[in-house]
Amino acid sequence: MAQQLATWTQLTKRSALQDMLELTSGSEYISFGLGLPNAEFFPTEQLARSANEVLLQQSNILQYAPPTELLKQQIQLLMGQRGVHCSTSQIFLTAGAQQGINLLARLLLDPGKTVLSEEVTYTGFLQVLEPFQPRILTVPTDPVMGIDVEQVEKILQTEERPACMYVIPSGHNPLSYTLSREKRQRLAQLAAEYEVPIIEDDPYGFLEYEDIEIPAIKSFQSDWVFYVGSFSKILAPGLRLGWIIANEEVIEKLSIAKEATDINTTTLTQQIAANFLQKDEFTKHLLYLRQEYSSRRNCMLDHLSARLGEVGSWTSPTSGIFIWVRFPEYINTMELFRESITTEKVTFFPGNVFAVGQNQISTSSIRLNFSFNNHDKIDEGIARLSRLVKRHI
Amino acid sequence: MAQQLATWTQLTKRSALQDMLELTSGSEYISFGLGLPNAEFFPTEQLARSANEVLLQQSNILQYAPPTELLKQQIQLLMGQRGVHCSTSQIFLTAGAQQGINLLARLLLDPGKTVLSEEVTYTGFLQVLEPFQPRILTVPTDPVMGIDVEQVEKILQTEERPACMYVIPSGHNPLSYTLSREKRQRLAQLAAEYEVPIIEDDPYGFLEYEDIEIPAIKSFQSDWVFYVGSFSKILAPGLRLGWIIANEEVIEKLSIAKEATDINTTTLTQQIAANFLQKDEFTKHLLYLRQEYSSRRNCMLDHLSARLGEVGSWTSPTSGIFIWVRFPEYINTMELFRESITTEKVTFFPGNVFAVGQNQISTSSIRLNFSFNNHDKIDEGIARLSRLVKRHI
Repeated sequence: MAQQLATWTQLTKRSALQDMLELTSGSEYISFGLGLPNAEFFPTEQLARSANEVLLQQSNILQYAPPTELLKQQIQLLMGQRGVHCSTSQIFLTAGAQQGINLLARLLLDPGKTVLSEEVTYTGFLQVLEPFQPRILTVPTDPVMGIDVEQVEKILQTEERPACMYVIPSGHNPLSYTLSREKRQRLAQLAAEYEVPIIEDDPYGFLEYEDIEIPAIKSFQSDWVFYVGSFSKILAPGLRLGWIIANEEVIEKLSIAKEATDINTTTLTQQIAANFLQKDEFTKHLLYLRQEYSSRRNCMLDHLSARLGEVGSWTSPTSGIFIWVRFPEYINTMELFRESITTEKVTFFPGNVFAVGQNQISTSSIRLNFSFNNHDKIDEGIARLSRLVKRHI
Repeated sequence: MAQQLATWTQLTKRSALQDMLELTSGSEYISFGLGLPNAEFFPTEQLARSANEVLLQQSNILQYAPPTELLKQQIQLLMGQRGVHCSTSQIFLTAGAQQGINLLARLLLDPGKTVLSEEVTYTGFLQVLEPFQPRILTVPTDPVMGIDVEQVEKILQTEERPACMYVIPSGHNPLSYTLSREKRQRLAQLAAEYEVPIIEDDPYGFLEYEDIEIPAIKSFQSDWVFYVGSFSKILAPGLRLGWIIANEEVIEKLSIAKEATDINTTTLTQQIAANFLQKDEFTKHLLYLRQEYSSRRNCMLDHLSARLGEVGSWTSPTSGIFIWVRFPEYINTMELFRESITTEKVTFFPGNVFAVGQNQISTSSIRLNFSFNNHDKIDEGIARLSRLVKRHI
C-alpha cells in the first residue's frame, strides 16, 4: 500500500501533537508541552444554556446552512479591539484557525512555489505546506524582537516573489514575542509594495496582559493581509470555530475551497457561539481570561527565576500562552525531552520541533506553555524541569 | 490579486451548491435541487438532551481531544449492518463524508496523477480533485445498472495505474442506482488485483427501502477499499460528522493530514452523537427515516407517472434520496433549469452539472431530490416541472 500513497506521506511521520497527547495523558505527567487553554475557564454552563436555546428555538439549526450571519456580526464587533474595521461580507467562518491557514494555503500555493517563513515557526503551518513541497525562504527571528523585517525586505528585493508570508504577530508560537507597532506597519507596507499576501495568524491577539493592545497587521493594510482568527483560546477549542478576514474576491474563492473540504462549518457550534457572544458576557469573560492567564504567566516566571536563574534565560511575554526558554548551547533540549519522559515526567516541546531547517536559536531552547496548569502544578513542574536541567550543567 | 492565486482558482467558479442555496431560499421556490435531508426528521429534542448531558457531566468536552472512542464503538456496531466488521482502530472520525473524501484524495494523489471515475458522478468529488488537476479516466455508467465494471477492468488492463477509483454504490448521487452484489464483489477483486484503492462513498447506504441490504464493497475487500460514511443523511448534517474505515497504516497517515487540516473534529458534536447513539433509539430512528423517505419516493414516482409518463423515464431507486429523470434528447435540461428560475420556480440539478467531460446521458436528464419536501410540495413541484417540460415538447 505504502508506495501507492502521495509523495508527502513518505516524507512525514505521525504528528508530534498526537504523540504528545497520548504520552502525557497520564496523571504522573505535568505537561507544559501542548498549547492547551485551561478547560476550567471555559464558560461551559453558559454554552450549555446557549446550546439548549438554539436547539429548541431554531428549527433549521441541524440542517446544511450558509455561514451564520449573527456570528459574523459578533466577530465584526470583536475585531474592533484589534483595530480592524470590516464588513461581515469580508468575514469567512472556518472550523478553527488551522483550517483558515489550510484554506489560504490551498488558495495561494501551487506545487513547488516559494513561501516566506521565520526560521522558527508554528509547526501547523509547516504541516499545511507538506503536500505542496514549496521552497521555503527563511527569515531570521528573535524571541523578543520578533521577525527581522529588514531581512524580509532584502528577500523580497532579491528572490523570486513568494506565494505568501506567514506571521504570528502576537504571543508568537513558539517564540512568545509580540511584534511592535512599527514592525507591523512596515510588514503591511512591504506586502502591498511587493504584492505578497501576508497570512496573519492571530489566535492569541485577544490574550493581552499589559493593556498595550497593538493593532493587527490587517489594520494597516486591508488588501494584502489575510487575517486568521480563532475562538479556540478565548472561548473553547471543542467548538472548532475560527475566521478569516479578507477582501470579497478572496472570500469567494475561499468558499469554493471550503465546500470541497467539508461543505460547511458545524452549524450547531456556530449558533451556540453566536448566542453566547450576543449576551454580552464575552467582554467580562475575556477580562477574566486575561487576569487568570497573566497570573499563571507570572507564576511560571517567578518559579523560573527562583530555580533556573543561573542556567537559563527566557522571555516575559505580553500576550499568548507560551514562554521561550534558552539554555547554554551545550544543552541539547531534544535529549532533555527524551530523558524527561522516563525520569522527571515533565513535558515541553524542544525548540527543534519548530525549526525550519537547521538553526542556532532552537537546539538549546524549549517552549513552555503556562495556560494549562494551575499554580501548584506550575510550581512542581518547574521544580522537575530544574532538576532535569541541572543534571546536565 | 487574482494572478497571485493558485492555478485551480482560475479554472473554477463559485460553487453551484452556494448559488443554489441562495437562489432557492425564497418561499416561492420548490427545490428538488439540493440533496438535503428533511429537518423535521432530525431528532432535535433528543440531541438537545444529549447536548445538555455531555456539556454538564463531562469536564473535558470543550477541550482539544483525540477522537471519541465511544463514537467509534457506535460506528463499529452500525457498520455490521453494512456487512463490515472492523476494529475501532480502523475507524477514523471526520467532519462529514466530504472531508473524508478530501483527506483520502490528499493521501492518494500527487499533482498530475490519474483517477478513475464514472462519466457522471458526485460534483463534490470533482471539486476535491481540482487542486491536483489529475487526468480523469472515465468509465461508462447507467442510472439503473450502475458503473460498467467490465470497462473498469479494461481500463485497469490498458492504462497507467490510477491513484484511486471513486464509487457511490448505494443510492448513487446523482444517478440513484444501487449496485448489485456481484458488481461490488467484482470491483473489490479488481481493486486488490490491480492494487488500486477504491474510495467507497456511502452516505446513503443506511437509507435502504426494499430490505435488500446489499453489503458495502468494503465487506468484500478490507485492504484496498476505503469506506467513507456520514451521519449527515441519517442523523443531521449540522453535526458535521462522518467516518472513514481503512487499515491502520492508512489511518495513521489520515491523522497527519487531518491535524494539518483542522486539528480535530468538533468534540462537542462527537460526544452529542455518541450519547444519542448509545441510547439505542437510533435503530428506531433509522426505521422511521426509511419509512418516511420511501413514502416520499413513492409519492414523487406516482406524480411523475401521472404527469410526465409520456415524455420522460426515470429510475425507481431502492435507496438514497434522488431520482434520475431522462427526457427526449432534444430537450436541454440546462436551458430548462434557467427558464424555471424565472417561470415555474421549481429547481433541480441539470444532468450536465455531474458530467465529467462531454457525454450523452446527462444533457437531457435531471436529478430530483425527494427527501426534502413533504407530499404536498412534491405534488405541486412535479406539476410545475410538468408544465415546464411540456412547453418544450
